[in-house]
Amino acid sequence: MRILIVNGPNLNLLGKREPSIYGSEGFDGFFEELQGNVSDAELEYYQSNVEGELVDKLQSAQVDGVLFNAAAYTHTSVALRDVIAAIETPVVEVHISNVLSREEFRHTSLIGGVCVGSISGFGLNSYRLGVTALVDYLNS
Amino acid sequence: MRILIVNGPNLNLLGKREPSIYGSEGFDGFFEELQGNVSDAELEYYQSNVEGELVDKLQSAQVDGVLFNAAAYTHTSVALRDVIAAIETPVVEVHISNVLSREEFRHTSLIGGVCVGSISGFGLNSYRLGVTALVDYLNS
Amino acid sequence: MRILIVNGPNLNLLGKREPSIYGSEGFDGFFEELQGNVSDAELEYYQSNVEGELVDKLQSAQVDGVLFNAAAYTHTSVALRDVIAAIETPVVEVHISNVLSREEFRHTSLIGGVCVGSISGFGLNSYRLGVTALVDYLNS
Amino acid sequence: MRILIVNGPNLNLLGKREPSIYGSEGFDGFFEELQGNVSDAELEYYQSNVEGELVDKLQSAQVDGVLFNAAAYTHTSVALRDVIAAIETPVVEVHISNVLSREEFRHTSLIGGVCVGSISGFGLNSYRLGVTALVDYLNS
Amino acid sequence: MRILIVNGPNLNLLGKREPSIYGSEGFDGFFEELQGNVSDAELEYYQSNVEGELVDKLQSAQVDGVLFNAAAYTHTSVALRDVIAAIETPVVEVHISNVLSREEFRHTSLIGGVCVGSISGFGLNSYRLGVTALVDYLNS
Amino acid sequence: MRILIVNGPNLNLLGKREPSIYGSEGFDGFFEELQGNVSDAELEYYQSNVEGELVDKLQSAQVDGVLFNAAAYTHTSVALRDVIAAIETPVVEVHISNVLSREEFRHTSLIGGVCVGSISGFGLNSYRLGVTALVDYLNS
Amino acid sequence: MRILIVNGPNLNLLGKREPSIYGSEGFDGFFEELQGNVSDAELEYYQSNVEGELVDKLQSAQVDGVLFNAAAYTHTSVALRDVIAAIETPVVEVHISNVLSREEFRHTSLIGGVCVGSISGFGLNSYRLGVTALVDYLNS
Amino acid sequence: MRILIVNGPNLNLLGKREPSIYGSEGFDGFFEELQGNVSDAELEYYQSNVEGELVDKLQSAQVDGVLFNAAAYTHTSVALRDVIAAIETPVVEVHISNVLSREEFRHTSLIGGVCVGSISGFGLNSYRLGVTALVDYLNS
Amino acid sequence: MRILIVNGPNLNLLGKREPSIYGSEGFDGFFEELQGNVSDAELEYYQSNVEGELVDKLQSAQVDGVLFNAAAYTHTSVALRDVIAAIETPVVEVHISNVLSREEFRHTSLIGGVCVGSISGFGLNSYRLGVTALVDYLNS
Amino acid sequence: MRILIVNGPNLNLLGKREPSIYGSEGFDGFFEELQGNVSDAELEYYQSNVEGELVDKLQSAQVDGVLFNAAAYTHTSVALRDVIAAIETPVVEVHISNVLSREEFRHTSLIGGVCVGSISGFGLNSYRLGVTALVDYLNS
Amino acid sequence: MRILIVNGPNLNLLGKREPSIYGSEGFDGFFEELQGNVSDAELEYYQSNVEGELVDKLQSAQVDGVLFNAAAYTHTSVALRDVIAAIETPVVEVHISNVLSREEFRHTSLIGGVCVGSISGFGLNSYRLGVTALVDYLNS
Amino acid sequence: MRILIVNGPNLNLLGKREPSIYGSEGFDGFFEELQGNVSDAELEYYQSNVEGELVDKLQSAQVDGVLFNAAAYTHTSVALRDVIAAIETPVVEVHISNVLSREEFRHTSLIGGVCVGSISGFGLNSYRLGVTALVDYLNS
Repeated sequence: MRILIVNGPNLNLLGKREPSIYGSEGFDGFFEELQGNVSDAELEYYQSNVEGELVDKLQSAQVDGVLFNAAAYTHTSVALRDVIAAIETPVVEVHISNVLSREEFRHTSLIGGVCVGSISGFGLNSYRLGVTALVDYLNS
Repeated sequence: MRILIVNGPNLNLLGKREPSIYGSEGFDGFFEELQGNVSDAELEYYQSNVEGELVDKLQSAQVDGVLFNAAAYTHTSVALRDVIAAIETPVVEVHISNVLSREEFRHTSLIGGVCVGSISGFGLNSYRLGVTALVDYLNS
Repeated sequence: MRILIVNGPNLNLLGKREPSIYGSEGFDGFFEELQGNVSDAELEYYQSNVEGELVDKLQSAQVDGVLFNAAAYTHTSVALRDVIAAIETPVVEVHISNVLSREEFRHTSLIGGVCVGSISGFGLNSYRLGVTALVDYLNS
Repeated sequence: MRILIVNGPNLNLLGKREPSIYGSEGFDGFFEELQGNVSDAELEYYQSNVEGELVDKLQSAQVDGVLFNAAAYTHTSVALRDVIAAIETPVVEVHISNVLSREEFRHTSLIGGVCVGSISGFGLNSYRLGVTALVDYLNS
Repeated sequence: MRILIVNGPNLNLLGKREPSIYGSEGFDGFFEELQGNVSDAELEYYQSNVEGELVDKLQSAQVDGVLFNAAAYTHTSVALRDVIAAIETPVVEVHISNVLSREEFRHTSLIGGVCVGSISGFGLNSYRLGVTALVDYLNS
Repeated sequence: MRILIVNGPNLNLLGKREPSIYGSEGFDGFFEELQGNVSDAELEYYQSNVEGELVDKLQSAQVDGVLFNAAAYTHTSVALRDVIAAIETPVVEVHISNVLSREEFRHTSLIGGVCVGSISGFGLNSYRLGVTALVDYLNS
Repeated sequence: MRILIVNGPNLNLLGKREPSIYGSEGFDGFFEELQGNVSDAELEYYQSNVEGELVDKLQSAQVDGVLFNAAAYTHTSVALRDVIAAIETPVVEVHISNVLSREEFRHTSLIGGVCVGSISGFGLNSYRLGVTALVDYLNS
Repeated sequence: MRILIVNGPNLNLLGKREPSIYGSEGFDGFFEELQGNVSDAELEYYQSNVEGELVDKLQSAQVDGVLFNAAAYTHTSVALRDVIAAIETPVVEVHISNVLSREEFRHTSLIGGVCVGSISGFGLNSYRLGVTALVDYLNS
Repeated sequence: MRILIVNGPNLNLLGKREPSIYGSEGFDGFFEELQGNVSDAELEYYQSNVEGELVDKLQSAQVDGVLFNAAAYTHTSVALRDVIAAIETPVVEVHISNVLSREEFRHTSLIGGVCVGSISGFGLNSYRLGVTALVDYLNS
Repeated sequence: MRILIVNGPNLNLLGKREPSIYGSEGFDGFFEELQGNVSDAELEYYQSNVEGELVDKLQSAQVDGVLFNAAAYTHTSVALRDVIAAIETPVVEVHISNVLSREEFRHTSLIGGVCVGSISGFGLNSYRLGVTALVDYLNS
Repeated sequence: MRILIVNGPNLNLLGKREPSIYGSEGFDGFFEELQGNVSDAELEYYQSNVEGELVDKLQSAQVDGVLFNAAAYTHTSVALRDVIAAIETPVVEVHISNVLSREEFRHTSLIGGVCVGSISGFGLNSYRLGVTALVDYLNS
Repeated sequence: MRILIVNGPNLNLLGKREPSIYGSEGFDGFFEELQGNVSDAELEYYQSNVEGELVDKLQSAQVDGVLFNAAAYTHTSVALRDVIAAIETPVVEVHISNVLSREEFRHTSLIGGVCVGSISGFGLNSYRLGVTALVDYLNS
């Protein structure tokens, strides 16, 4: 079972900046640790700040499931909504912070409605829960 | 570690009706199974269709964390938002269905912003993921 | 054929207060008279001011059809909408006054869209018409 | 007692098209049957697709009450609202389908607030209930 | 100088109904009196309840100016706006009542922006003022 | 019969600036001419750019009627609405330009609903028509 | 193959007025020319300023397809939407001007969603393209 | 003179939680003190977290006036608005905190418009002021 | 302890006009009476119809607390909100009538959120309660 | 005459996915066929999922006209609107599906107002009609 | 070259209050310093808390350009917009704080659209930049 | 001191197109001139039409401050807002035209609230003022 984790804009800054909000752990270290913990799935990772490159990646990914943190594009991208609706691969939405406790414009998700489900607010643990959710979903 | 699962209105109908949407498994059976699977926490369960009784329960619960599916009250109850903000016990929001793919009025959550985080769309598995999330949160 | 009439908040005040709006006839007297007039159905009656108790009643009622005046909860209750959608018993919405000629916030009905149909504005006669409508519906 | 039934735009198509929504019975046959069933009132019938002709008819009708299905004009016509408010003849609003379970723009009724009451969702039986409601209203 | 007065829906009821709002004077009598008072213009009169017939009349009128009380269509008709914008004849908007002190949906005028000017609230005197305004406008 | 003409902010610039919109005639010259033409009423004139001074003037004016061009305050002043509602002197609203053909925020009038009536779009002639309207109103 | 072209309000003025916007060619001349150019379909033409007459025509037309420029009624008529949805004949929406570059209230089309497709902005050529589109659609 | 103080959801937590916002004084102690200070009225106290129980209490209270802090239900309950409008007992609205300086959804009061008056922002002193206001009101 | 009472636009008309709404007592007489009743604070009074003069007064007042009825400016003045936020003197908002039972545009208060608290609906007694509230606040 | 066809995000998936909506024909095959059919213009083709690359292409294209299906970016991209407004090359908007019969957020086109015209709903035939429209436009 | 700096409501408090937001420097000292630094223009200064006095000043100022910080009136004054549009003197909008990072109601500027340009967020340096901008503008 | 000027979509067209709006000067020539004029800072320049590339550049820039004209992305990009909030480098927003005098959708800035300040409307001089503002800010 192959799972792709896709991170959207500014998530490459994790651990380097605003540690009070996003924690002081970089995503690379976390990802390695996550790979070590997950035995029933093979994990891949992709990040881009470019909306269209995220579309490209989701179109071409040869995996069984996707874990997607669209970050800022969550609230503005119809193109990402369309690609998730178009591909057959199931996608799970994740967020590090609790978006509902932030600015009003972050309360809307254009992509949530076409994903399998959503997990938000648990810090980097949101990804760990997302992998579990996706593995369970693919097994059922 | 003690965790309380609270279910809001109409969730007592699970498994009896609309199996195409909510599955054919009743919550009682699922809960027993869940208790068997979770070793690091003691689980309790409460359900009510009355908004104020849910407030009462959240006020008086002597537990370390709460898993809360507020169902219909998610979108209309300031009282439940207030009680979650008032108590010190961390609360995790869960939903069985993907609320963002249903009617417009279900896209708003009055309680999400004062919870630790949210999990939705994974069927009854949302609860299993929620217990994991809460245990991790309490351990960190 | 068994029909349950359910009245929501403040309808227990009928006939006692604001007779210029709601008439001077109490619901109990009217209900007895109605029972006398209806020969092809057995009528039951329930009233509560508590939203969740109305949910409870609709879940557990062992009848062929329900006549429901949700009163104030018409405009605010997703929980009542959900229970009507969940049960198989057909529900007909009734209102004593013409809600469209009152305050703006009474022009919206959260429950109307999941009922069989709606009758409003005919005073207590709305219930009599509702029983007829329900009997016809169940016979067809 | 004379009652006029007025049907708005496209209701002359009843029975010919979209039988899954509107049933396969034409209005003419139904109207004859209805005339046979009602003994305490004389029924007349008028249909037009032209908003202004409906205004004309409501202005000039020499009847004791009107049953009015304004169809599409329900949601857009201030002119029909004005004529109902201007004439002294009581008007009852009827709809075949449950408008609240259809498109958003059908949830608004410009004319409901100036009618005696409204009946919707019971198929052609809405008219039969409407005649009863109007006769009761005129007798009281 | 020829001036056409055009009245929209329900204005043929003037004087017959709701005298407390619209006065007890019929438009025909008022129009004759007005013709007697105006010496520098020849007055004609047209009324229809049909939006499209009002469009027809405005298109074909062979006059120097139009006084137009669109009544209910003021708030809903793009077609009347379009015809006023299309013809070269200047049009003055008049209203008998003060529309801004009535229901919210009467506060919007779709046609006012393409007329020369508007006069409202002076009862039938609004027409008299409108004729004066139009004569002055045509003379300047 | 005494009539007070009140002009709001920036109307003291009439004739000096933007002649393409407001014409090249100053208000003083126009007012003198108007006084000469009106024989059945004594005219007074007041202008201020200060909202509160306009309130003061309307409170203290010892006249039979007021012609009021509130200009920019038309769209923003609840205080002017309140004073017009509070005094017994009838007030007629006038505008030089056709406000409905200008920016969206000029389409709303906070004061129109408490005036006798409104006249707009006829240039300075709006005042002449307003005096006539007020004299007729006071005589009736 | 028979195709009916239906034009809504004010389109009978084409070529006579506002040539800078709508061109100087009348629709009759254009229609003749169009008939000469189209060999695989027989063309008919109808125009009315009355919303309800357009409904009548669409109901009764014995053709294979309709090209419909609803003009002003595009933005306000639920009745026209309903008739297009009710009849089985496919309808193509056309507009002469580019409605999206005009006033805000012209950006909404109530009828577009129930048509096969829409063509706008190409002047009278929109009709020529519409006939081609309809013929292709009927052939496929 | 008998006065009933009614507290809505979560106000039973006063003094126990969030002392920085609501103060460290419990309501019971405050109530006893208040009873000691008020000589011209007999005070009673009721609290519930259940909307419908608050409706019940307001319906059945045998008192001369009510002091009501509806808390979260202030912003969502039409049922409480209806009961206040239905009973003859005057009701005064009180709030401990200044609701206008909190979240946007707390700026709306559904019940304020049917109360005698409102007092908010003075901490527990709001109740003391409310008793005075009510006694004055009942004496006048 | 010195307290300044500030009244906004049109409150100088109290007692002279619209006694059915505002009572027949002028503010001067009431103020004298109030001064006689209050022993623990020295009262001053200021009224202006000019928004900016109210700003001036609030900036320069040498008092311990302010009781402010901003009247119409309550709903429109950011300048008054800013001055209350800028000065250190505590301000209490008062209203004579119950603003929530009047027009929609009076339901918003721009200044309430920066005041200590608000009192409305008790007639002139609102001021008396306000003085008590302010004295209590300053003493605590 | 050279014409460039530009396709936005996810249109490279045509024919591979969701054939029930978008048909089973890939764009490449269709494009070759189209080139074969069009004799009076030379066709080029470009597709990208990246908004900014579409801006780049539109800026640098050396052609006489552009056929543009902006897909998801139709509803969100001001940058694409700006580039169409900035370049002198005429652009025609095309859509495969009828966007007005899909989700609400697809009813808005940010780019339509600056294009020559729009064609939507005819499947891949929309492009064929678009080429014809563009050739006609360039020839006129 | 003569430049007038105009400050709106509450800006006379600069330096005295809320130094954390507005700095501890009074405007008078800053203005003197600014006069010393600017050699190519003569600077004048005016401040008022009264909207209408600001209108008066802008009408009568005999200068080459105006630097205007309308403060709270920025968001509410159509009168100030009108005077800026009416006079020929160019006006530059300045703000001390970054209005876009404050309350929602400060995000709208009624006057910005009729000014030459806007500068905000640089503290008192906004004025210094504004003088430079105005001098450059007048020289070009 | 190093300052980076970043230009968003379509600003590479400056000087080539629409000179009446944006002037006839290309940005390259202007930038060289600007470098010659600024002695206390080293200037760099970057332009891209791709939102994500602008995010990349802002993340990786090794400078003391950024001058950013986000052009069309100003109104739609949460990703750019997030990167400005995430990096420590201060950013100043600039615009060539006065965005408040253009289309409604350009009146909103998603990025302004997280910048130091904003300068708009002064043509290319906005950049010159921006450099001054940034140098002053970095020196203070």
